[in-house]
Amino acid sequence: MKLWKKQYDIDKIIEDFTVGNDREIDLYIAKYDVIASKAHAKMLASTGIISTEEAQKLLVVLDELLLEIENNSFIIESDFEDVHSKIEFELTKRLGVIGKKIHTARSRNDQVLVALQLYYKDEIQSIIKLVKNLFDTLISLAGQYKEKLLPGYTHLQVAMPSSFGLWFSGYAETLIDDMELLHAILKIVDQNPLGSAAGYGSSFPIDRKFTTKELQFNTLKYNVIAAQMARGKNERLITNSLGNLANTLAKFSMDICLYMSQNFGFISFPNELTTGSSIMPHKKNPDVFELIRGKCNQIQSAQTEMLLLANNLPSGYHRDFQLLKETTIKTIENSKTVLNIFNYSIQQIIVKDIDINDEKYKYLFTVDNINNLVIGGKPFREAYQQISTQIEEGTYVPDTSKKHTHIGSIHNLCLKEIEAKAAKL
Amino acid sequence: MKLWKKQYDIDKIIEDFTVGNDREIDLYIAKYDVIASKAHAKMLASTGIISTEEAQKLLVVLDELLLEIENNSFIIESDFEDVHSKIEFELTKRLGVIGKKIHTARSRNDQVLVALQLYYKDEIQSIIKLVKNLFDTLISLAGQYKEKLLPGYTHLQVAMPSSFGLWFSGYAETLIDDMELLHAILKIVDQNPLGSAAGYGSSFPIDRKFTTKELQFNTLKYNVIAAQMARGKNERLITNSLGNLANTLAKFSMDICLYMSQNFGFISFPNELTTGSSIMPHKKNPDVFELIRGKCNQIQSAQTEMLLLANNLPSGYHRDFQLLKETTIKTIENSKTVLNIFNYSIQQIIVKDIDINDEKYKYLFTVDNINNLVIGGKPFREAYQQISTQIEEGTYVPDTSKKHTHIGSIHNLCLKEIEAKAAKL
Amino acid sequence: MKLWKKQYDIDKIIEDFTVGNDREIDLYIAKYDVIASKAHAKMLASTGIISTEEAQKLLVVLDELLLEIENNSFIIESDFEDVHSKIEFELTKRLGVIGKKIHTARSRNDQVLVALQLYYKDEIQSIIKLVKNLFDTLISLAGQYKEKLLPGYTHLQVAMPSSFGLWFSGYAETLIDDMELLHAILKIVDQNPLGSAAGYGSSFPIDRKFTTKELQFNTLKYNVIAAQMARGKNERLITNSLGNLANTLAKFSMDICLYMSQNFGFISFPNELTTGSSIMPHKKNPDVFELIRGKCNQIQSAQTEMLLLANNLPSGYHRDFQLLKETTIKTIENSKTVLNIFNYSIQQIIVKDIDINDEKYKYLFTVDNINNLVIGGKPFREAYQQISTQIEEGTYVPDTSKKHTHIGSIHNLCLKEIEAKAAKL
Amino acid sequence: MKLWKKQYDIDKIIEDFTVGNDREIDLYIAKYDVIASKAHAKMLASTGIISTEEAQKLLVVLDELLLEIENNSFIIESDFEDVHSKIEFELTKRLGVIGKKIHTARSRNDQVLVALQLYYKDEIQSIIKLVKNLFDTLISLAGQYKEKLLPGYTHLQVAMPSSFGLWFSGYAETLIDDMELLHAILKIVDQNPLGSAAGYGSSFPIDRKFTTKELQFNTLKYNVIAAQMARGKNERLITNSLGNLANTLAKFSMDICLYMSQNFGFISFPNELTTGSSIMPHKKNPDVFELIRGKCNQIQSAQTEMLLLANNLPSGYHRDFQLLKETTIKTIENSKTVLNIFNYSIQQIIVKDIDINDEKYKYLFTVDNINNLVIGGKPFREAYQQISTQIEEGTYVPDTSKKHTHIGSIHNLCLKEIEAKAAKL
Repeated sequence: MKLWKKQYDIDKIIEDFTVGNDREIDLYIAKYDVIASKAHAKMLASTGIISTEEAQKLLVVLDELLLEIENNSFIIESDFEDVHSKIEFELTKRLGVIGKKIHTARSRNDQVLVALQLYYKDEIQSIIKLVKNLFDTLISLAGQYKEKLLPGYTHLQVAMPSSFGLWFSGYAETLIDDMELLHAILKIVDQNPLGSAAGYGSSFPIDRKFTTKELQFNTLKYNVIAAQMARGKNERLITNSLGNLANTLAKFSMDICLYMSQNFGFISFPNELTTGSSIMPHKKNPDVFELIRGKCNQIQSAQTEMLLLANNLPSGYHRDFQLLKETTIKTIENSKTVLNIFNYSIQQIIVKDIDINDEKYKYLFTVDNINNLVIGGKPFREAYQQISTQIEEGTYVPDTSKKHTHIGSIHNLCLKEIEAKAAKL
Repeated sequence: MKLWKKQYDIDKIIEDFTVGNDREIDLYIAKYDVIASKAHAKMLASTGIISTEEAQKLLVVLDELLLEIENNSFIIESDFEDVHSKIEFELTKRLGVIGKKIHTARSRNDQVLVALQLYYKDEIQSIIKLVKNLFDTLISLAGQYKEKLLPGYTHLQVAMPSSFGLWFSGYAETLIDDMELLHAILKIVDQNPLGSAAGYGSSFPIDRKFTTKELQFNTLKYNVIAAQMARGKNERLITNSLGNLANTLAKFSMDICLYMSQNFGFISFPNELTTGSSIMPHKKNPDVFELIRGKCNQIQSAQTEMLLLANNLPSGYHRDFQLLKETTIKTIENSKTVLNIFNYSIQQIIVKDIDINDEKYKYLFTVDNINNLVIGGKPFREAYQQISTQIEEGTYVPDTSKKHTHIGSIHNLCLKEIEAKAAKL
Repeated sequence: MKLWKKQYDIDKIIEDFTVGNDREIDLYIAKYDVIASKAHAKMLASTGIISTEEAQKLLVVLDELLLEIENNSFIIESDFEDVHSKIEFELTKRLGVIGKKIHTARSRNDQVLVALQLYYKDEIQSIIKLVKNLFDTLISLAGQYKEKLLPGYTHLQVAMPSSFGLWFSGYAETLIDDMELLHAILKIVDQNPLGSAAGYGSSFPIDRKFTTKELQFNTLKYNVIAAQMARGKNERLITNSLGNLANTLAKFSMDICLYMSQNFGFISFPNELTTGSSIMPHKKNPDVFELIRGKCNQIQSAQTEMLLLANNLPSGYHRDFQLLKETTIKTIENSKTVLNIFNYSIQQIIVKDIDINDEKYKYLFTVDNINNLVIGGKPFREAYQQISTQIEEGTYVPDTSKKHTHIGSIHNLCLKEIEAKAAKL
Repeated sequence: MKLWKKQYDIDKIIEDFTVGNDREIDLYIAKYDVIASKAHAKMLASTGIISTEEAQKLLVVLDELLLEIENNSFIIESDFEDVHSKIEFELTKRLGVIGKKIHTARSRNDQVLVALQLYYKDEIQSIIKLVKNLFDTLISLAGQYKEKLLPGYTHLQVAMPSSFGLWFSGYAETLIDDMELLHAILKIVDQNPLGSAAGYGSSFPIDRKFTTKELQFNTLKYNVIAAQMARGKNERLITNSLGNLANTLAKFSMDICLYMSQNFGFISFPNELTTGSSIMPHKKNPDVFELIRGKCNQIQSAQTEMLLLANNLPSGYHRDFQLLKETTIKTIENSKTVLNIFNYSIQQIIVKDIDINDEKYKYLFTVDNINNLVIGGKPFREAYQQISTQIEEGTYVPDTSKKHTHIGSIHNLCLKEIEAKAAKL
């Protein structure tokens, strides 16, 4: 069943191709389509386009449908083009001629758009919560392991002393930036597009402020072309902000895989979290974190698809936009999975004892030695040259006694301040 | 069931995450895993690592499994990690101890790799055939419409006379380049990786030339590290070459959508191939070609995922590589669909009559007018200035009589030569 | 001259390769390096690491250098590795031993990072101003042309009535979202990294709050690993937000190129803004907007480079990060150019008269006709079918009289409300 | 000076913007423009469009220009739009009216295209030679270090024995695939586009076979639309094939950086090839290979720009295409630099002695132990379980004595066969 049934039939091959897997994907947005339809029906009544009685009948059935969706008993049969056709069909089936009024003064274009934006809002908020959970875990681990030294590397070369506390809370503070970006995207998505119809508005005297309030949007996209132009831009912004978050987790996973290598041996995980090999019986591989890194790379690549789908197209709706939702939804789902798995697994990390006095870590402390000379009155660049000569001549002896006390350094992690920054988001 | 079962259980949450949707995806490669296992079993017998009798029993069961796969009665139950575990399990269930010998001298790494490469080979060959079908259609349409003029545009501005014949065969000849690239990728994929085991070979005296011949690979990847390094590179090359093809089809679709706009009105399609609107009853939209363009953009974006998944990782297997197959398979499937739908739809194109004498097309012929002056003896740049002045002063009168006769021009399409070029691929 | 001169010489080929074009690029950040060095010197004095007298001498020379930079008389000679070496050299040349103290308690890593962040802050603020200028231009054009109707398209097919006012202000309101994102990125960049040294802090008791205040950063990146982790993330966020803006301008340019085509003929530009052809004397091509679109696509692609440069690398500095600045700076410069040229050119647009009663625009009004039936009491879906039948049977007569009055529609553009939204950013 | 001078002046701001940095970039293709102009002049004479005497005069001046280009005395002054205007100007200045005939029957569009394709052909051939040089170096290193064992890793975990010989020659054999792709792209670019004029051919009876032979193209692009459609596709194919090569070198560089870390300590380079730190006097960083990796990531990202520039645009020339050459040329130059630096540096690698009996490498040999049991008659999966149990129970004793003899394994590198494969390209 199509909303636009003609006096001829559409070629079956073409129909299958154009419908694609919409029925399956639309289940993610069914709930939001009903919620938006409820607001639309109330608005139609409030402006007198339909009667209050008609609106109430529509609301009753829409609430029934909402319940069916929540109960997973709502099904989009194969003779429906999408969730929108299905819902209009049900309204007409259950209410007769009143059902045929629901589509007054709107178009499937703004119907899809408003449902997607409501869905995006909910999902971004859920994801921010999951990021915050991980942030909390990391701050807690940082506190727990703040005394454990870790070699710090630059260029993958032994550089200066670091610590597990610094490492965990470094990722925590980076997650604050990632949340900041998610909040900005949330704000951009939080603008009511309903009423833009096919992208050029309607000649009905609809009340867009009413639906904005009803749907709890922060504001509305006034201009109807601007409203429709969000197609593609929303998805690009969302996938990009999730990609930015994924980038943090991918780097963290890379660290973990490296630190689990026998050549580093800084951390391990319980056997139950590792994976074996089909031929090497000794293997306990960090597959969880490799797959997190891989999925994060998939998440990061999603924005390229969003970009390509809408780029260089003139304004106005194009059917290409139908394809935007599939990968965006998949990326949202993957992001939630990855956040959950990361948070679950990292809590089981085993921090090993590192022999920081091992010969290979000897030069971790050269800057502290320079420091001693500087405090003794030597200009920095001369002190640098002096220690440099000791190293070349093999006379260098490390001083491992120094404390790093400034803000954000290994012995002054400022976890409270970082938490306060996160709380202000 | 896992090939690497340990004396402890893997955390269920972790197991679900790491297995992912492999069972579903692996159905695409099940057939090729059995084929490669058959070749491996024969090789083990030929080198005396197992007995000929054992090999024959393995082959019998592997042929049974092949039949089940072809009959769609082969199922990977949820207690199997992947298709490879399932097949080894079936061999052991049906043959007892002999089944436990199939994995001798190989690793799941090279098992996955060889199955994927066999699958890729088959699919690239299928796709080349589909491209050739579309090429044939376009050459045929070019012949059919070779007399129909079409305005040629540069900068989307009316430029010089073109024709439908030139347009159709222009895309046909471009598809030859796209096939050329696919052939190159096919050649790169056509190198036997079997025997590379986990990426560092085996201490068994396996005969890799035997499996190369048995599996009809063109040659072998000698170096076992090189064999494993193809993970990621294969997928990148395949998605890129399909993206390159998709780019041609996306541009063609853009032309079609533009030419169907009422403002061009050069072509149309039967009603049965168009799609309507939920609020505008007059709409007959070119959704097919918009969705082809959209899917082509999805195909084009796949290479970014392949790139990100493997980039900046050191050599040796990483579990991230498990994720390479999902989008590659999807991209292959999408490419076949798009080629079929394009070929099906383009045959139904309705070429409309274009009034080339319409005022807006008046300047299509300015270069031909210059030409007349040049043939009359005027240097080109002076002739150009003379016609330029006529246009500025409003005295220009087009000469629409000239024939374009050189190779590849509107009145000399060279369809035979283009077909001959395609035949040489 | 290098800051890290050893007792042996670096291979000349390698030196040239590693230095690359840093000397040229560093001129963009020279000013900010001096500003940050001033703040660092003051802090060293305030904490007693150097004397107040030493700091004042350093400040005098740093101010001299600032003046030289502003006068374009500051040159980084070819024997310097980068701007940082040059500045330390000048301090030492002019001040002797005091100059050798400037690098106390900092590293080139955080020196580069703080200079880049100061530069980014300034540039993002400049770009936001340029976007606002364009926004103002568009709002003004929308007001000027609010009565001029324009066919609205979906699927590139004639759809519903639009207007030039709607078109201009649609892009204006979209630019608000683009500015919103730039503001979010500005906030993320506005966190002081100075004091993170090589990425693991310092054993000197430096006062990071002092430099945060002195450099007018909004807050500081507490954790020193988090500070360094911003390398790559900053550049990715900046290029992405500029890409998001570029996407809007590219789409706008595509509209312009299309509307300038003789087949649309909706707009033109003065001859002085168009470009000719080497063989077609009649051509007046929209090269400006094609090049804007092209440059916008270059801007959009920059984020992929940023992503690839830092992706999958473990934490800690890697020399790859040196390459981040080149394309980021180019992208910033291109963004400013494109905004200026767009704003300059769009003001000269010539809006042509469109004959909305032309046969090809006949169906623009079908939804308004349905509307009439609905107001007369017919349920929407039945009214839709009735007009659909009229169209099929050729009896449809358009009603072009209806006004669109709701918020954001063609006769109620809400320009004041859109301006108010922009003012709240 | 423009080829298309009108009776009005172009706005200076617009002119500067549209010309961009073409004058600088065009120096890369000046030589090829002259070569193509020579072939064009000869063809014009051979078809009688100009006289033989005129052609010879043009050839004399074109040869003068070629000499000037080779002597670096050829300059494109700021009053020329591009190299093409400059050359036509010089011909007219030196030959008067005859110079004004050079542009007969061609357009700047095909002039740019043919010059670029000639340039691309030369550069791809140069790059293939540089790859072959690196291949030869790696084969030589593989031979030199074939006896040196190296731990092999999967999942960054100690896996099975590898060797330096295997490692070097693994990258060598991978480079064969990269060269294979470059050869395919070379073939696609090796098709003469000259004669396509503005993209729709010419009404002159030009002889395109003549110029194909004269310019030593392998064949011609018959269809003139197809010829022009190569804009964007050529650049995409070239940057992608260079990106594919860069991917190999980036991975190799990642290995090198990892193996140079004190935690691996497998290799080092002479001091002269390493770089120091501004604060840590002990640092000898692998900046060369980090910058190679970084530049390889820039090379890999170039294809996204090519894709975005041309994607979703309808057929026919658009000015956006002018921007394609800048990044393509930069990517070609970067590729040559990276290949040269890599080949230069890798020859100076210092392979260190690795204590393969170190405790952390103990499990490298578990598969060889299983192998012993299998040869003794135990089915593989049972042998696997037996060794697995030994490991769990701490009773495992490695057998480090086994030889790996099959094709492509550590003790049978097949360097001759790999060289033979490369020779067949």
